[in-house]
Amino acid sequence: MTDAPMTAQAASTATAGDILSRQLTAQAGAFLRALPLAVGEVGARPGSAAAVPAAGTADLLRAVRRIGGLLHSFGAVFEQTWAQESRTELRWLLNLLALEPGYVRRSARLLGALDSLSGSDPEGTGMLAGHAGAPKARALLDRQLTLARTRAHSTVLQELRSARLHALADRMTLLVGEAPLLEAAGGRASAVLLPQAAAAFTAMSASAQQLPLQRAATPYGGDGLRRLGAVPTARGATDADTALAADDAPWSRLRILVKRARYALEVCGRPSSELDELDAVLGRHQEAADAAVTAATAARTPRITPATAYVLGVVHADQRLEVEAARYAFGRRWPDLPLGLDGWLEIPPAEGWGHSPAPRTA
Amino acid sequence: MTDAPMTAQAASTATAGDILSRQLTAQAGAFLRALPLAVGEVGARPGSAAAVPAAGTADLLRAVRRIGGLLHSFGAVFEQTWAQESRTELRWLLNLLALEPGYVRRSARLLGALDSLSGSDPEGTGMLAGHAGAPKARALLDRQLTLARTRAHSTVLQELRSARLHALADRMTLLVGEAPLLEAAGGRASAVLLPQAAAAFTAMSASAQQLPLQRAATPYGGDGLRRLGAVPTARGATDADTALAADDAPWSRLRILVKRARYALEVCGRPSSELDELDAVLGRHQEAADAAVTAATAARTPRITPATAYVLGVVHADQRLEVEAARYAFGRRWPDLPLGLDGWLEIPPAEGWGHSPAPRTA
Repeated sequence: MTDAPMTAQAASTATAGDILSRQLTAQAGAFLRALPLAVGEVGARPGSAAAVPAAGTADLLRAVRRIGGLLHSFGAVFEQTWAQESRTELRWLLNLLALEPGYVRRSARLLGALDSLSGSDPEGTGMLAGHAGAPKARALLDRQLTLARTRAHSTVLQELRSARLHALADRMTLLVGEAPLLEAAGGRASAVLLPQAAAAFTAMSASAQQLPLQRAATPYGGDGLRRLGAVPTARGATDADTALAADDAPWSRLRILVKRARYALEVCGRPSSELDELDAVLGRHQEAADAAVTAATAARTPRITPATAYVLGVVHADQRLEVEAARYAFGRRWPDLPLGLDGWLEIPPAEGWGHSPAPRTA
Repeated sequence: MTDAPMTAQAASTATAGDILSRQLTAQAGAFLRALPLAVGEVGARPGSAAAVPAAGTADLLRAVRRIGGLLHSFGAVFEQTWAQESRTELRWLLNLLALEPGYVRRSARLLGALDSLSGSDPEGTGMLAGHAGAPKARALLDRQLTLARTRAHSTVLQELRSARLHALADRMTLLVGEAPLLEAAGGRASAVLLPQAAAAFTAMSASAQQLPLQRAATPYGGDGLRRLGAVPTARGATDADTALAADDAPWSRLRILVKRARYALEVCGRPSSELDELDAVLGRHQEAADAAVTAATAARTPRITPATAYVLGVVHADQRLEVEAARYAFGRRWPDLPLGLDGWLEIPPAEGWGHSPAPRTA
């Protein structure tokens, strides 16, 4: 996933600034190429629904995530105010662009779950097959999610014409070849970048170690339904929404840290398929948790029938089960990761720096 | 669990009839001692609820199960009509006695699940914590199960005074020392009993092999919620109740076969802790499946609120998750069992027959 691979020879003498500038130039270029495509794509689909963002939007999201991650993890070598402002603007665009595809994916997930739960396929009859509430609950979820998506679409359309986006595009244009680096960037790549990538890795590890990973590696522990984490007493509330949010929060936070570590390793020329997989697992966790909230919220719609509410209760539990399954998958994979960066970044620069490394087998 | 252990010396020359008579005498004696206690216990608790049957009832159930199992697995050496009638009457008493404790356990399971799901304990906040429907659903389940239990209690009280029970007690009295054996029972124990115990074991294995054990050994496959077995097309219906019943049926059947194999091995002096555990796992499977049906049925009560129905949907899914967890536990344990009786029953009689064997380590 290294967008600007270098030969080992060139890399061995590169400064941190060389590496980062090259990466930023490549990603800012990708941003500027993808932006008009993405704007066109959003404008072209007033009502259509695609679970996967179209190519331009996907490329734009990809560049935005990597530039933001780079500016975070290697922030020490950039002009502080500029880096902070850039990250804020990139996060704004990320949230904006992710909004509509997020609703489309949530809709696909929830309606897919409902169809699976109420399906009467011989290979997969669900526990709600033939239930009178299933079509009603489906229509309710579909209506509510379509409305949310339409609203998101309008917001995105509006913001894509905003001065704010133009300013961000200008910022990216200036970034091509001209990242505002501090003097520290003149140091050798290995001396400057490795400690910062290691810090991203350490932050991720520390966050993961605080999770109940042992518990999460035991299947059917009921964590998704029955044993949510304690709500900090300061908040006082003991209702399920607060408990669920508090229970999911550290996993959401970990997801961000995994992404940061992943992008930091990419910058160092060490893409990790293990981190890609953990990122994907935590992405599933996030989407299932969000879908569960949507089901619970839909069940509070006034004047629905008991049958509809019953089906939504099953769907809610089903999505919390998916949350538990994702935690289980994470809890099983995590111990395979080395506890530190040893073996990932400790290779002498002349041998492995900058280029895609041989696949790790540890 | 062999009630009439024999010395190896005595056993080595015993006929099949000797072994079976001894077992039946012991169990029929246990039956006759426990019966008045059980009758007294049922009469003494018009309203009280015990999740575990009282001592007399438990002893009675234990004797009834073993006599019935013995008459089934070693039926070839008994007078046919007598054995068949005895089994019918024992099964009647078994179902009768199991009725009330069954409702008590189901109530404890469902209310416990609801309390766990709606609990706000820091160690185990549930996804229904603080939900308005939780107390209503609890009250509804409690009311319906109490009513069912009270009805069952009246039935049991009435039947325990019936001529049918007196006739069964007389039958058991005659059994002490005087089992109506056929000539075949005169053969050596190893030659007559082992093939019949092996048949019980084979029936169990064949039944288990037809289950989707591979699938059941994969956690979070969604079998409990989404991938119920195909309903035989002859039945036509594709509603969830039929699908759930069809999905659970082979597991219920297997539970009976495991019990039979377990009791047959006990008769042969080879109690198996593996089979005890499988029996317990399948018992959990059965109770969770029954509890799920009760939750689904309660959700169809007219005029309940949507909040109540929603909570019952979560409880239903929770119990189906327990069904899946039990299948997972079974799927993990089953491969540990030898595929045949080799190693269990092939020990020469003089060494191991009749007495408790050394613990198997295979």
